[in-house]
Amino acid sequence: MWIESIPNFSEGRDAETLEALKRSVEGIPGVYRLGFEADPDHHRSVMTLAGEPTALVEALVRVSRVAVERIDLRRHQGTHPRIGAVDVIPFVPLSGASLPDAVSVSRRLGERLAAELQLPVFYYEASALKPERKNLAAVRRGQFEGLADRMAKDPPDVGPIRPHPSAGAVAVGARRPLIAFNAYLDTQDLAVAERVARAVRHSSGGLAGVKALAMDTRPSQGMVQVSMNLVDYPTTPLPRALDLVRVEAQRWGTRVVRTELIGFMPMAAVEDIVRHYLGLWDFDRFRIVEEAVRQATDQS
Amino acid sequence: MWIESIPNFSEGRDAETLEALKRSVEGIPGVYRLGFEADPDHHRSVMTLAGEPTALVEALVRVSRVAVERIDLRRHQGTHPRIGAVDVIPFVPLSGASLPDAVSVSRRLGERLAAELQLPVFYYEASALKPERKNLAAVRRGQFEGLADRMAKDPPDVGPIRPHPSAGAVAVGARRPLIAFNAYLDTQDLAVAERVARAVRHSSGGLAGVKALAMDTRPSQGMVQVSMNLVDYPTTPLPRALDLVRVEAQRWGTRVVRTELIGFMPMAAVEDIVRHYLGLWDFDRFRIVEEAVRQATDQS
Repeated sequence: MWIESIPNFSEGRDAETLEALKRSVEGIPGVYRLGFEADPDHHRSVMTLAGEPTALVEALVRVSRVAVERIDLRRHQGTHPRIGAVDVIPFVPLSGASLPDAVSVSRRLGERLAAELQLPVFYYEASALKPERKNLAAVRRGQFEGLADRMAKDPPDVGPIRPHPSAGAVAVGARRPLIAFNAYLDTQDLAVAERVARAVRHSSGGLAGVKALAMDTRPSQGMVQVSMNLVDYPTTPLPRALDLVRVEAQRWGTRVVRTELIGFMPMAAVEDIVRHYLGLWDFDRFRIVEEAVRQATDQS
Repeated sequence: MWIESIPNFSEGRDAETLEALKRSVEGIPGVYRLGFEADPDHHRSVMTLAGEPTALVEALVRVSRVAVERIDLRRHQGTHPRIGAVDVIPFVPLSGASLPDAVSVSRRLGERLAAELQLPVFYYEASALKPERKNLAAVRRGQFEGLADRMAKDPPDVGPIRPHPSAGAVAVGARRPLIAFNAYLDTQDLAVAERVARAVRHSSGGLAGVKALAMDTRPSQGMVQVSMNLVDYPTTPLPRALDLVRVEAQRWGTRVVRTELIGFMPMAAVEDIVRHYLGLWDFDRFRIVEEAVRQATDQS
């Protein structure tokens, strides 16, 4: 059984710390680092790991230990909300795993972070023990700076009842695969991107499971961006969200020039894209010759 | 190194022979049967094999032996042109293999079919030794019935200079992956499908590497079909061909309702589809989480 985890660290600048985080997950049999990106503006980094549950939990304990030792939130500033040195650790089921499997792995990690690193742990999303903690934004409210006051009334799910002095607390939770996907519009008008984002996102009347924000990417890209998270894939597949962005952009006299995928998309999303845009209704991954070969090899 | 082969047999009806063909390639380590489809109308069957060169050649010798023993072209009728019991054996390079690799495997098979089964072998496409044999249609001209006369003037590349009395001859050759792809039009008018096919296919002024025919699929599907072979993929990617079919269909007041993939498509085609229809310019297979995991696993 394979689980993916995408820990977020409140450090995006110090090369030594970034290197130490990377090194800490190396050489653990059964776990693989698929990616690691640091963002100096957000002062934040994101690692993508995949592996068998036991190996994955071990890797996450090790990398969290490095984060706790090296990252001091008392001296951290960034635009992205955060409550901890290792701020949030999402778990996503991969092939052969279910969401409850990912929940159970998240709880195993939470217990170890509390016991071995003295980190207060808040379970969120599918792992939440309290309904008001399902939403990660609610768990992060008040951020690191407001954590001590908040925890006095609102204790964590496991671990110390006070924040770790330098490393704060951590949000740990299982969720479905999320597709992070941006569309660039052929305009300099940020208000157009805002209108399109509003039309598409669930919270203002758009598509179920779609979060969308207008981003001012004029300085780096010369045009504006609609940034989306598809959080209930495959209920709302990517082609439906993109088609609606295209229709809405057209209403304002502009169009989608190109798109951008952040991180990875599941193979199921690729199947949907092929089915949708080709009208190839019965397409699945085993019509790809390399997948068919692999399936044959695995079964032999 | 992996090579695909798609041998075509002049038998699509006799269940015992079809079963014997299938069984003959089983239990050979290193070769996998991905598919086997028999068409009773065409009286023809198509097997898809993939494997390491040596195992693949062995499997093809065995299945060809069964075809030679059980299929008698003197009693065979079908709408599809054919010269032999095992009529044509294409080789396609898969991951890690090049077209010259596939040519070299095709020649190894040709030598064995000539020596062990007394089959005359014509090398075609990338394996052709004479330019006029590059085109499979030219190799099949006159079919089985005209083979003795034709071979008297035009000897095969290897093997006996006369046809095998019951099994004819065989065309063996390496080619690039081919995508066989059909588009159904929302019309009963076969003339429209013919006009669209003519606009798209290379030989009448359309796209490089695209073969296209109108097919009367009204009896089974209630609408007509444009049947395409993309023979020079990825020079002419599938989205370009489909987009042109859509534009041409619109000119005649109709549209593509759905499409159909025959056999398999390479992962490279899937990458193109995602890039093209999402405008996701830098997409490749390693942005699919399952592929990224597999790559990480393979490299560890």
